[in-house]
Amino acid sequence: MRNLMWLAAAALLGVTACQPAETPEQIQARMEQDSEELRAAVASATQRWEAWTAAGQTDSFATLFTEQGRELPPNAPPVAGREAIAAFHAQQAAMGSSTVDITSESVMAYGPLGIDRGTFTSTLQPGPDAPPGIPTADTGKYLVHWHKVDGNWLIADLIWNSDLPLPQPER
Amino acid sequence: MRNLMWLAAAALLGVTACQPAETPEQIQARMEQDSEELRAAVASATQRWEAWTAAGQTDSFATLFTEQGRELPPNAPPVAGREAIAAFHAQQAAMGSSTVDITSESVMAYGPLGIDRGTFTSTLQPGPDAPPGIPTADTGKYLVHWHKVDGNWLIADLIWNSDLPLPQPER
Repeated sequence: MRNLMWLAAAALLGVTACQPAETPEQIQARMEQDSEELRAAVASATQRWEAWTAAGQTDSFATLFTEQGRELPPNAPPVAGREAIAAFHAQQAAMGSSTVDITSESVMAYGPLGIDRGTFTSTLQPGPDAPPGIPTADTGKYLVHWHKVDGNWLIADLIWNSDLPLPQPER
Repeated sequence: MRNLMWLAAAALLGVTACQPAETPEQIQARMEQDSEELRAAVASATQRWEAWTAAGQTDSFATLFTEQGRELPPNAPPVAGREAIAAFHAQQAAMGSSTVDITSESVMAYGPLGIDRGTFTSTLQPGPDAPPGIPTADTGKYLVHWHKVDGNWLIADLIWNSDLPLPQPER
């Protein structure tokens, strides 16, 4: 009886204290499980991103982001919040018809935090409003900070850059 | 007695199952605690990064990265692994004397995963080996994927890009 009481007390203590006391094996197991879940969300988001780009469906991108989510494009200031993200994509689409091909290479998640790294190639067929000399093809890499909000994986931060050298400036 | 046995059994089950069963409050508390810890590591790393840049101490940067860590510079291919990272920084230093000023704006961590977003400004005083037209000042944003390895926070992925518009290409 006394043993059982100790066991019950120790186990109850364990329940309240267990959270930070993970073993390396538990951390590894949870990382694999949570990453698997995020991997499915990333695959779905990537497919939609590519389809929306090809269709010029610019008002859809913001739905993948958190309320305060940020898109951090190269050679432009940060774009913060869903409204600004929608406007940014509308502005991009006004340059012409685009395609993008995204390849996620590494996905990791733990609890509500996730990270996704990958590569992309993109093309632009410039429209009449595009500035002269705008790049028509790009290839590069990206990093996404995913955040789980009310059970849904959303983009908190998305940043990318080009592998291609800077154009030589005019002299 | 029977009650105690049930309590012991239920609590033991709880111990094995408790890991994924965090309440939103527990998640929040752990996020704050783990982020606080990473924030200190980021502050220290940032300070060292700035000092090594000013001193041209190019062989030190790689010590902040995981074995397979990646630096993803704009307008260049990815740089993977400590050896390649050291070579990349040596190559950068050969362009001239640099300074960088890094401001971390948001740090989040949960378990072994962490994310740090911020901004930077940098300057370059081009040396004799710098290509003509190399940019001498930059300002932009970055995202870092931090990973806790054997109790130490290290950089798994670092990506950044410029806020400045692309130079106009030669016609």
